[in-house]
Amino acid sequence: MNGFKSIEFDEEKLKFIDQSKLPLVEEYIVTDDYERIAEAIEKLEVRGAPAIGIAAAYALALSIKNVSDEYEIVFSKAYERLASTRPTAVNLFWALNEIKSEFEKNRDTKKLYDKLIHKANEIYLDDFDKCEKMAEFGLQIFQKKSKVLTHCNTGHLVTAGRGTAFGIIQRAFDLGLVEHVFADETRPLLQGSRLTAFELDKSGIPFSIITDSTAAFLMKEGKVDLVITGADRITSNGDAANKIGTYSLAVNCKHHNIPFYIAAPTTTIDVNLRTGEDIKIEERDKSEINSIGGVQITKQNYAVFSPAFDVTPNFLITAIITEKGFHLPPFDFLNV
Amino acid sequence: MNGFKSIEFDEEKLKFIDQSKLPLVEEYIVTDDYERIAEAIEKLEVRGAPAIGIAAAYALALSIKNVSDEYEIVFSKAYERLASTRPTAVNLFWALNEIKSEFEKNRDTKKLYDKLIHKANEIYLDDFDKCEKMAEFGLQIFQKKSKVLTHCNTGHLVTAGRGTAFGIIQRAFDLGLVEHVFADETRPLLQGSRLTAFELDKSGIPFSIITDSTAAFLMKEGKVDLVITGADRITSNGDAANKIGTYSLAVNCKHHNIPFYIAAPTTTIDVNLRTGEDIKIEERDKSEINSIGGVQITKQNYAVFSPAFDVTPNFLITAIITEKGFHLPPFDFLNV
Repeated sequence: MNGFKSIEFDEEKLKFIDQSKLPLVEEYIVTDDYERIAEAIEKLEVRGAPAIGIAAAYALALSIKNVSDEYEIVFSKAYERLASTRPTAVNLFWALNEIKSEFEKNRDTKKLYDKLIHKANEIYLDDFDKCEKMAEFGLQIFQKKSKVLTHCNTGHLVTAGRGTAFGIIQRAFDLGLVEHVFADETRPLLQGSRLTAFELDKSGIPFSIITDSTAAFLMKEGKVDLVITGADRITSNGDAANKIGTYSLAVNCKHHNIPFYIAAPTTTIDVNLRTGEDIKIEERDKSEINSIGGVQITKQNYAVFSPAFDVTPNFLITAIITEKGFHLPPFDFLNV
Repeated sequence: MNGFKSIEFDEEKLKFIDQSKLPLVEEYIVTDDYERIAEAIEKLEVRGAPAIGIAAAYALALSIKNVSDEYEIVFSKAYERLASTRPTAVNLFWALNEIKSEFEKNRDTKKLYDKLIHKANEIYLDDFDKCEKMAEFGLQIFQKKSKVLTHCNTGHLVTAGRGTAFGIIQRAFDLGLVEHVFADETRPLLQGSRLTAFELDKSGIPFSIITDSTAAFLMKEGKVDLVITGADRITSNGDAANKIGTYSLAVNCKHHNIPFYIAAPTTTIDVNLRTGEDIKIEERDKSEINSIGGVQITKQNYAVFSPAFDVTPNFLITAIITEKGFHLPPFDFLNV
């Protein structure tokens, strides 16, 4: 996948791949309308913590692109709109606040828009760099050529670089350290079978898609050497919120004595939250369960409980990999 | 669901609901062609261990309905055909052998066909009776009004009566002992969101459909008091093969200190198998993962690993309920 970019700022517009159509259709959205980008975040056309942050940063900068009067009001409205898109995504708030503080530093200068775009570019390049560093620190989880299991999607599609957990897998594969990857399909939105499979295929890594509940079976059969996932939010004690299903994997790793790793940039860490119990969990709409891909599976009036995330407590996590290092328990992210 | 029959022998034909179309369409297949019934078992139009046994018994009896010459050859061919449909379903072989031994006892008598149908009717009525007995023995898993989680589908659709695990839940609900049921959607074939939801709805039991990997989240939140599932095959030491995902639930129950129960008739017990390691696991076709409900989700050429079943070892099972009693570990089914 060298050279593949899922998101980039080019010719004064943000261009990003529509992840909701992958892998069957590779289609890009090109826009300088922050509202369109806000919608894309809500509709999961852009998803994954770092990509959301990058998209939101450019969107907020773009909000004042063609505005001369009342740009403070427009900016503030855009900030609120973008902040409302995905309440669990801490990267979103971090990126918006980076642009906001640049705005406040330069609000009366002539080239305010250029400064904001420059800041968004910095966030982008910084994310690319973080992926490379995580990939490097993450290599130490491979004691031998390994069979890896992962959940949801954490690669090129969701970052400016090669990804978080996926970046580590890809880097290890390049060094001959990955034998096979099992990709959880990741219900309800099937990011694994659609997006991770796409990235694994493009990267030439041997893989199999599995249903989420097949992971335990594979562990029992000795077919998984390690599990690594990303995270959407990490609290200061190392509890990690990630896609629903991650916690079940961590419990199964514990039972089968298999190491369980999390890879995420430090922007995912929310030091304002002490433990995972402080994390608010979004609920997804029941239509994602009662229908799949537009086809009705069961009656729409049947009740559904569909949390978007779960929280894996720190004692189930073998290590957390950030761009700053390889963190072992007991985790203390107050000063990372 | 009183009076609802998913399978019955009526006017010299077998009539059964097409489970592959539920819950959106309630359609019945009415046939006296054993090959059509064999296809129905293969295509999961009839599914669930007891229902497969009942359908196969009638099918084998029907194979000689209109045959006068060479009925021994026809019977033998039908036996082989039906035996090939679902290799993991021990009830299938048990039921076929019941009809076969009736055939051998009466092969030269005039009313051979009537005798075989009579035997199939006995199997049917016996299954109904077993469900009632399991429901009664199973009541003791309820210490209070409980929140129950179940996997796959085990009710009216798959037995002659009210079901195995589902029958226990329904009987307990009638006595005010069930607060809520969480039904795993049960990938890949979604028997939970389609069929168990249908049965829960028809029975008036409050329920929510969840993705399979949401179960662990609910357990951590204290929202599950007990888990009960059926089984497709139980070995003499109490290891139980059931729909993929059951094992992951059992591991999570262990971690969260939640009781895990299996309910299945003794015909599910295969005394020829000493442990779960002796059970052959079918693999399902990758099209069930890469497409859902006829809609392509991901590329058809992406590799998939999709075992139909997993095996839960006896040490993770709190108790097994059969029509003969409430069995506690250490299990020894050699003489049940």
